[in-house]
Amino acid sequence: MTKMPKNSSTQRELAFPSSSQTLCPIARVQDVVGDRWTVLVLRELFLGNRRFEEIQIQTQATPQMVASRLKKLESDGLVERRIYSQRPPRHEYCLTEMGVAFHPVFLALRAWGETWFKSNDEEVAIQYIHVPCGQDPGLGPDCRSCAKVMRRGELSAKLSAPYGAERQARLDAFKGR
Amino acid sequence: MTKMPKNSSTQRELAFPSSSQTLCPIARVQDVVGDRWTVLVLRELFLGNRRFEEIQIQTQATPQMVASRLKKLESDGLVERRIYSQRPPRHEYCLTEMGVAFHPVFLALRAWGETWFKSNDEEVAIQYIHVPCGQDPGLGPDCRSCAKVMRRGELSAKLSAPYGAERQARLDAFKGR
Repeated sequence: MTKMPKNSSTQRELAFPSSSQTLCPIARVQDVVGDRWTVLVLRELFLGNRRFEEIQIQTQATPQMVASRLKKLESDGLVERRIYSQRPPRHEYCLTEMGVAFHPVFLALRAWGETWFKSNDEEVAIQYIHVPCGQDPGLGPDCRSCAKVMRRGELSAKLSAPYGAERQARLDAFKGR
Repeated sequence: MTKMPKNSSTQRELAFPSSSQTLCPIARVQDVVGDRWTVLVLRELFLGNRRFEEIQIQTQATPQMVASRLKKLESDGLVERRIYSQRPPRHEYCLTEMGVAFHPVFLALRAWGETWFKSNDEEVAIQYIHVPCGQDPGLGPDCRSCAKVMRRGELSAKLSAPYGAERQARLDAFKGR
């Protein structure tokens, strides 16, 4: 089981200004992640793509859409902006502890999507190895091999060949412009 | 671990007409559930509210918004409409197997929301009992008491007093109109 961090009242005020009239956690989080493009931006951050251009290429959103989502994710506390180059000034975007804690939602979405939105001839987009046992953990939430909960830090990820090709094609198309 | 149903090619065609250019399961499902109001409609269905008016009252969406989300959920295969009264003709909305299979995503959203979007003096909105062991399972995905995966059919749910009062107040306000 995950040790749940206590959140400070500062985080609370940042995190749900517009829906504090409800106690429902689902409604509160939908103000933050109830938008398709926000979820795709988070997906890229979880895949390790921290730079604006990479995120734009792989989500296929416009620069304006990516910028607005990153800005909101930053103000909601899921993302931190860090400078990686002074001249010219360049930023990268990193998940905060709160952002990383969203990972189980991704695993659950992945399980549902791989089960219900794939034809029989399509393989999983991302293949995991569950590091503690060295096996394919399946779709979770528990590893189908060792029965432990799948945690982000214990998963080694590899793109399937077709999904890797799909992402490479987006990169090539962008560079070709 | 959950036995994953095989989906038919019919379901596939219904389910992701607009994003079949990607193999990413996250992107595919965002076409279906990447909208705040859709998620709130699903929440009500999971809470057992099957009628249009109940869904409208508790989501606080307009009738038009509820109608469009239910229609899309039906065409996407998550919801089935059933007649419960002939005169006048009245429908209720039921989750299909595919809709019920979305439940782990709700559990993950709940866990994240209860952890990061609640102040210390707010209790969980819905209290569960894990029926197989009779204990509070915590936020999951595994029961903190018996370590088994939390499954929808094995959870007995009870609204916390403040969340129950919040929902009752919405109902009263609607009836008072």
